[in-house]
Amino acid sequence: ARPRVGYFYTGKTGSELISEQVKKLKVRDQHSVPVVVNDQVSVYDAITTMFLEDVGTLFVVNQKALLVGVLSRKDLLRASMGNQELSDVPVHIIMTRIPKIKICYKDDLLVDAATKLIENQIDALPVVVDREDGQEVVGRLTKTNITKAFVDLVREE
Amino acid sequence: ARPRVGYFYTGKTGSELISEQVKKLKVRDQHSVPVVVNDQVSVYDAITTMFLEDVGTLFVVNQKALLVGVLSRKDLLRASMGNQELSDVPVHIIMTRIPKIKICYKDDLLVDAATKLIENQIDALPVVVDREDGQEVVGRLTKTNITKAFVDLVREE
Repeated sequence: ARPRVGYFYTGKTGSELISEQVKKLKVRDQHSVPVVVNDQVSVYDAITTMFLEDVGTLFVVNQKALLVGVLSRKDLLRASMGNQELSDVPVHIIMTRIPKIKICYKDDLLVDAATKLIENQIDALPVVVDREDGQEVVGRLTKTNITKAFVDLVREE
Repeated sequence: ARPRVGYFYTGKTGSELISEQVKKLKVRDQHSVPVVVNDQVSVYDAITTMFLEDVGTLFVVNQKALLVGVLSRKDLLRASMGNQELSDVPVHIIMTRIPKIKICYKDDLLVDAATKLIENQIDALPVVVDREDGQEVVGRLTKTNITKAFVDLVREE
Protein backbone atom coordinates (compact mmCIF):
# COMPACT_ATOMS: atom_id res chain seq x y z
CA ALA A 1 0.00 0.00 0.00
CA ARG A 2 1.12 3.52 -0.73
CA PRO A 3 2.00 5.56 2.34
CA ARG A 4 -0.54 8.28 2.87
CA VAL A 5 1.33 11.38 3.84
CA GLY A 6 -0.29 14.37 5.55
CA TYR A 7 -2.89 12.76 7.77
CA PHE A 8 -3.28 10.15 10.46
CA TYR A 9 -5.94 8.75 12.71
CA THR A 10 -6.00 10.29 16.17
CA GLY A 11 -9.54 9.49 17.31
CA LYS A 12 -9.67 12.98 18.74
CA THR A 13 -12.07 15.78 18.05
CA GLY A 14 -11.01 19.42 17.83
CA SER A 15 -12.50 20.03 21.25
CA GLU A 16 -10.40 17.31 22.84
CA LEU A 17 -7.28 18.75 21.26
CA ILE A 18 -8.08 22.16 22.74
CA SER A 19 -8.37 20.89 26.26
CA GLU A 20 -5.20 18.83 25.87
CA GLN A 21 -3.30 21.90 24.69
CA VAL A 22 -4.65 24.00 27.55
CA LYS A 23 -3.90 21.25 30.07
CA LYS A 24 -0.22 21.43 29.19
CA LEU A 25 -0.02 25.07 30.34
CA LYS A 26 1.39 25.56 33.82
CA VAL A 27 1.42 28.57 36.15
CA ARG A 28 5.20 28.77 35.58
CA ASP A 29 4.58 29.53 31.88
CA GLN A 30 2.55 32.68 32.51
CA HIS A 31 2.99 34.23 35.94
CA SER A 32 4.32 37.74 36.60
CA VAL A 33 6.77 39.14 39.12
CA PRO A 34 5.21 39.65 42.58
CA VAL A 35 5.09 43.04 44.27
CA VAL A 36 5.34 42.70 48.04
CA VAL A 37 5.10 45.08 50.97
CA ASN A 38 5.97 44.56 54.61
CA ASP A 39 3.01 44.14 56.98
CA GLN A 40 4.11 47.20 58.96
CA VAL A 41 3.91 49.72 56.09
CA SER A 42 1.02 52.18 56.05
CA VAL A 43 -2.03 51.96 53.79
CA TYR A 44 -0.85 55.24 52.25
CA ASP A 45 2.52 53.72 51.31
CA ALA A 46 0.81 50.59 49.95
CA ILE A 47 -1.38 52.70 47.66
CA THR A 48 1.70 54.59 46.49
CA THR A 49 3.48 51.28 45.79
CA MET A 50 0.45 50.01 43.86
CA PHE A 51 0.56 53.08 41.57
CA LEU A 52 4.34 53.09 41.20
CA GLU A 53 4.45 49.38 40.31
CA ASP A 54 1.17 49.60 38.36
CA VAL A 55 -0.29 46.40 39.76
CA GLY A 56 -3.78 45.57 41.00
CA THR A 57 -2.72 43.34 43.89
CA LEU A 58 0.03 43.56 46.52
CA PHE A 59 1.21 40.66 48.65
CA VAL A 60 2.03 41.33 52.28
CA VAL A 61 4.95 39.61 53.99
CA ASN A 62 6.26 39.53 57.56
CA GLN A 63 9.80 40.16 58.84
CA LYS A 64 10.77 36.62 57.74
CA ALA A 65 9.60 37.44 54.18
CA LEU A 66 6.76 34.92 54.51
CA LEU A 67 3.29 35.54 53.08
CA VAL A 68 0.79 36.89 55.61
CA GLY A 69 -1.76 38.81 53.52
CA VAL A 70 -3.09 40.16 50.24
CA LEU A 71 -4.17 43.71 49.35
CA SER A 72 -6.43 44.35 46.35
CA ARG A 73 -7.33 47.71 44.79
CA LYS A 74 -10.77 47.13 46.25
CA ASP A 75 -9.33 46.76 49.78
CA LEU A 76 -7.32 49.96 49.38
CA LEU A 77 -10.23 51.89 47.87
CA ARG A 78 -12.45 50.82 50.79
CA ALA A 79 -9.80 51.93 53.27
CA SER A 80 -9.33 55.26 51.51
CA MET A 81 -13.05 55.98 51.94
CA GLY A 82 -12.80 55.65 55.72
CA ASN A 83 -12.16 58.48 58.12
CA GLN A 84 -8.74 57.31 59.26
CA GLU A 85 -5.47 58.97 58.33
CA LEU A 86 -4.04 56.52 55.75
CA SER A 87 -0.43 57.09 56.80
CA ASP A 88 -1.31 56.01 60.36
CA VAL A 89 -2.95 52.67 59.49
CA PRO A 90 -0.64 49.67 58.90
CA VAL A 91 -1.70 47.38 56.05
CA HIS A 92 -2.07 44.34 58.31
CA ILE A 93 -5.23 45.98 59.68
CA ILE A 94 -7.05 45.97 56.33
CA MET A 95 -5.45 43.09 54.38
CA THR A 96 -7.04 39.74 53.63
CA ARG A 97 -5.01 37.36 55.77
CA ILE A 98 -3.97 33.71 55.98
CA PRO A 99 -5.80 31.29 56.02
CA LYS A 100 -8.35 33.14 53.84
CA ILE A 101 -5.80 33.67 51.06
CA LYS A 102 -5.90 31.48 47.94
CA ILE A 103 -2.47 30.50 46.62
CA CYS A 104 -0.94 28.53 43.76
CA TYR A 105 2.34 26.81 42.88
CA LYS A 106 4.50 27.07 39.75
CA ASP A 107 3.69 23.50 38.78
CA ASP A 108 -0.09 23.94 39.07
CA LEU A 109 -2.06 23.78 35.85
CA LEU A 110 -2.92 27.24 34.55
CA VAL A 111 -6.56 26.19 34.14
CA ASP A 112 -6.76 25.19 37.82
CA ALA A 113 -5.35 28.55 38.89
CA ALA A 114 -7.81 30.28 36.53
CA THR A 115 -10.66 28.34 38.12
CA LYS A 116 -9.53 29.52 41.58
CA LEU A 117 -9.58 33.15 40.37
CA ILE A 118 -13.12 32.75 39.04
CA GLU A 119 -14.58 30.74 41.93
CA ASN A 120 -13.16 33.05 44.59
CA GLN A 121 -13.84 36.24 42.62
CA ILE A 122 -10.29 37.51 43.00
CA ASP A 123 -7.93 39.22 40.58
CA ALA A 124 -4.65 37.57 41.51
CA LEU A 125 -3.07 34.59 43.27
CA PRO A 126 0.36 34.61 44.92
CA VAL A 127 2.63 31.94 43.45
CA VAL A 128 4.37 30.44 46.49
CA VAL A 129 7.09 28.04 47.58
CA ASP A 130 6.58 26.13 50.84
CA ARG A 131 9.10 26.85 53.59
CA GLU A 132 9.43 25.28 57.01
CA ASP A 133 7.48 27.99 58.80
CA GLY A 134 5.29 29.37 55.99
CA GLN A 135 5.25 30.31 52.34
CA GLU A 136 7.56 32.50 50.31
CA VAL A 137 6.04 34.52 47.45
CA VAL A 138 7.83 33.91 44.14
CA GLY A 139 5.22 35.11 41.63
CA ARG A 140 1.87 36.72 40.88
CA LEU A 141 -0.78 35.07 38.71
CA THR A 142 -3.52 37.41 37.48
CA LYS A 143 -6.49 37.49 35.13
CA THR A 144 -4.18 39.43 32.81
CA ASN A 145 -1.88 36.38 32.62
CA ILE A 146 -4.87 34.17 31.78
CA THR A 147 -6.14 36.64 29.17
CA LYS A 148 -2.67 36.61 27.56
CA ALA A 149 -2.66 32.80 27.53
CA PHE A 150 -6.07 32.85 25.82
CA VAL A 151 -4.80 35.21 23.12
CA ASP A 152 -1.62 33.12 22.68
CA LEU A 153 -3.68 29.99 22.01
CA VAL A 154 -4.93 31.62 18.84
CA ARG A 155 -1.98 33.77 17.83
CA GLU A 156 0.65 31.04 18.22
CA GLU A 157 -0.46 29.00 15.21
CA ALA B 1 -11.92 1.44 -2.44
CA ARG B 2 -13.25 0.69 1.04
CA PRO B 3 -14.57 3.70 2.87
CA ARG B 4 -12.33 4.49 5.82
CA VAL B 5 -14.52 5.37 8.77
CA GLY B 6 -13.29 7.35 11.76
CA TYR B 7 -10.77 9.64 10.17
CA PHE B 8 -10.43 12.02 7.28
CA TYR B 9 -7.86 14.31 5.82
CA THR B 10 -8.12 17.89 7.01
CA GLY B 11 -4.62 19.14 6.40
CA LYS B 12 -4.82 20.73 9.84
CA THR B 13 -2.64 20.32 12.88
CA GLY B 14 -4.01 20.16 16.41
CA SER B 15 -2.91 23.72 16.96
CA GLU B 16 -4.90 24.93 13.98
CA LEU B 17 -8.02 23.17 15.24
CA ILE B 18 -7.61 24.93 18.57
CA SER B 19 -7.46 28.34 17.06
CA GLU B 20 -10.48 27.63 14.86
CA GLN B 21 -12.55 26.67 17.87
CA VAL B 22 -11.41 29.71 19.83
CA LYS B 23 -11.94 31.93 16.80
CA LYS B 24 -15.63 31.09 16.78
CA LEU B 25 -16.13 32.69 20.20
CA LYS B 26 -17.74 36.11 20.04
CA VAL B 27 -18.05 38.91 22.58
CA ARG B 28 -21.80 38.16 22.68
CA ASP B 29 -21.03 34.68 24.12
CA GLN B 30 -19.24 35.97 27.21
CA HIS B 31 -19.96 39.60 28.11
CA SER B 32 -21.53 40.76 31.37
CA VAL B 33 -24.18 43.34 32.18
CA PRO B 34 -22.83 46.93 32.14
CA VAL B 35 -23.01 49.19 35.18
CA VAL B 36 -23.42 52.82 34.17
CA VAL B 37 -23.49 56.13 36.00
CA ASN B 38 -24.51 59.57 34.79
CA ASP B 39 -21.65 62.00 34.10
CA GLN B 40 -23.04 64.41 36.71
CA VAL B 41 -22.85 62.05 39.70
CA SER B 42 -20.10 62.61 42.27
CA VAL B 43 -16.95 60.55 42.60
CA TYR B 44 -18.24 59.55 46.03
CA ASP B 45 -21.45 58.14 44.55
CA ALA B 46 -19.50 56.36 41.80
CA ILE B 47 -17.32 54.61 44.39
CA THR B 48 -20.45 53.61 46.31
CA THR B 49 -21.97 52.23 43.09
CA MET B 50 -18.78 50.29 42.35
CA PHE B 51 -18.96 48.58 45.75
CA LEU B 52 -22.72 47.97 45.64
CA GLU B 53 -22.55 46.44 42.16
CA ASP B 54 -19.20 44.77 42.89
CA VAL B 55 -17.61 45.68 39.54
CA GLY B 56 -14.14 46.95 38.70
CA THR B 57 -15.21 49.35 35.94
CA LEU B 58 -18.11 51.81 35.56
CA PHE B 59 -19.22 53.31 32.26
CA VAL B 60 -20.25 56.96 32.24
CA VAL B 61 -23.17 58.16 30.08
CA ASN B 62 -24.65 61.56 29.30
CA GLN B 63 -28.28 62.72 29.50
CA LYS B 64 -28.99 60.95 26.19
CA ALA B 65 -27.68 57.67 27.69
CA LEU B 66 -24.72 57.74 25.30
CA LEU B 67 -21.21 56.64 26.34
CA VAL B 68 -18.92 59.52 27.33
CA GLY B 69 -16.40 57.95 29.73
CA VAL B 70 -14.99 55.05 31.70
CA LEU B 71 -14.05 54.85 35.41
CA SER B 72 -11.70 52.17 36.68
CA ARG B 73 -10.92 51.27 40.31
CA LYS B 74 -7.54 52.82 39.66
CA ASP B 75 -9.14 56.15 38.58
CA LEU B 76 -11.31 56.19 41.69
CA LEU B 77 -8.44 55.22 44.01
CA ARG B 78 -6.32 58.02 42.54
CA ALA B 79 -9.17 60.51 43.06
CA SER B 80 -9.73 59.34 46.62
CA MET B 81 -6.08 60.11 47.43
CA GLY B 82 -6.51 63.75 46.41
CA ASN B 83 -7.43 66.58 48.73
CA GLN B 84 -10.84 67.29 47.22
CA GLU B 85 -14.15 66.45 48.87
CA LEU B 86 -15.31 63.39 46.84
CA SER B 87 -18.99 64.30 47.03
CA ASP B 88 -18.22 67.68 45.37
CA VAL B 89 -16.33 66.31 42.34
CA PRO B 90 -18.44 65.07 39.38
CA VAL B 91 -17.09 61.94 37.69
CA HIS B 92 -16.66 63.65 34.32
CA ILE B 93 -13.66 65.49 35.83
CA ILE B 94 -11.70 62.30 36.52
CA MET B 95 -13.00 59.78 33.97
CA THR B 96 -11.19 58.55 30.89
CA ARG B 97 -13.18 60.13 28.07
CA ILE B 98 -14.01 59.62 24.39
CA PRO B 99 -12.05 59.32 22.10
CA LYS B 100 -9.50 57.68 24.42
CA ILE B 101 -11.94 54.90 25.30
CA LYS B 102 -11.53 51.45 23.73
CA ILE B 103 -14.85 49.76 22.82
CA CYS B 104 -16.11 46.51 21.32
CA TYR B 105 -19.22 45.16 19.62
CA LYS B 106 -21.22 41.98 20.33
CA ASP B 107 -20.15 40.47 17.01
CA ASP B 108 -16.43 41.07 17.59
CA LEU B 109 -14.29 37.99 18.10
CA LEU B 110 -13.55 37.36 21.76
CA VAL B 111 -9.85 37.00 20.98
CA ASP B 112 -9.78 40.46 19.36
CA ALA B 113 -11.44 42.00 22.41
CA ALA B 114 -8.98 40.11 24.66
CA THR B 115 -6.11 41.52 22.61
CA LYS B 116 -7.48 45.06 23.11
CA LEU B 117 -7.59 44.51 26.88
CA ILE B 118 -3.97 43.35 26.91
CA GLU B 119 -2.55 45.93 24.50
CA ASN B 120 -4.23 48.86 26.21
CA GLN B 121 -3.64 47.52 29.73
CA ILE B 122 -7.28 47.91 30.74
CA ASP B 123 -9.60 45.66 32.75
CA ALA B 124 -12.83 46.11 30.78
CA LEU B 125 -14.32 47.23 27.46
CA PRO B 126 -17.81 48.64 27.01
CA VAL B 127 -19.85 46.59 24.54
CA VAL B 128 -21.64 49.21 22.43
CA VAL B 129 -24.27 49.69 19.74
CA ASP B 130 -23.81 52.58 17.32
CA ARG B 131 -26.51 55.27 17.41
CA GLU B 132 -26.91 58.34 15.23
CA ASP B 133 -25.23 60.68 17.69
CA GLY B 134 -22.99 58.31 19.64
CA GLN B 135 -22.82 54.89 21.22
CA GLU B 136 -25.14 53.12 23.62
CA VAL B 137 -23.59 50.76 26.20
CA VAL B 138 -25.18 47.30 26.11
CA GLY B 139 -22.52 45.20 27.85
CA ARG B 140 -19.24 44.95 29.71
CA LEU B 141 -16.38 42.69 28.63
CA THR B 142 -13.72 42.06 31.28
CA LYS B 143 -10.65 39.94 31.91
CA THR B 144 -12.95 37.86 34.14
CA ASN B 145 -15.05 37.01 31.06
CA ILE B 146 -11.90 35.97 29.19
CA THR B 147 -10.65 33.93 32.16
CA LYS B 148 -14.02 32.13 32.24
CA ALA B 149 -13.78 31.43 28.51
CA PHE B 150 -10.29 29.99 29.07
CA VAL B 151 -11.58 27.66 31.80
CA ASP B 152 -14.55 26.65 29.62
CA LEU B 153 -12.14 25.50 26.88
CA VAL B 154 -11.17 22.60 29.14
CA ARG B 155 -14.28 22.05 31.23
CA GLU B 156 -16.72 21.88 28.31
CA GLU B 157 -15.31 18.68 26.84
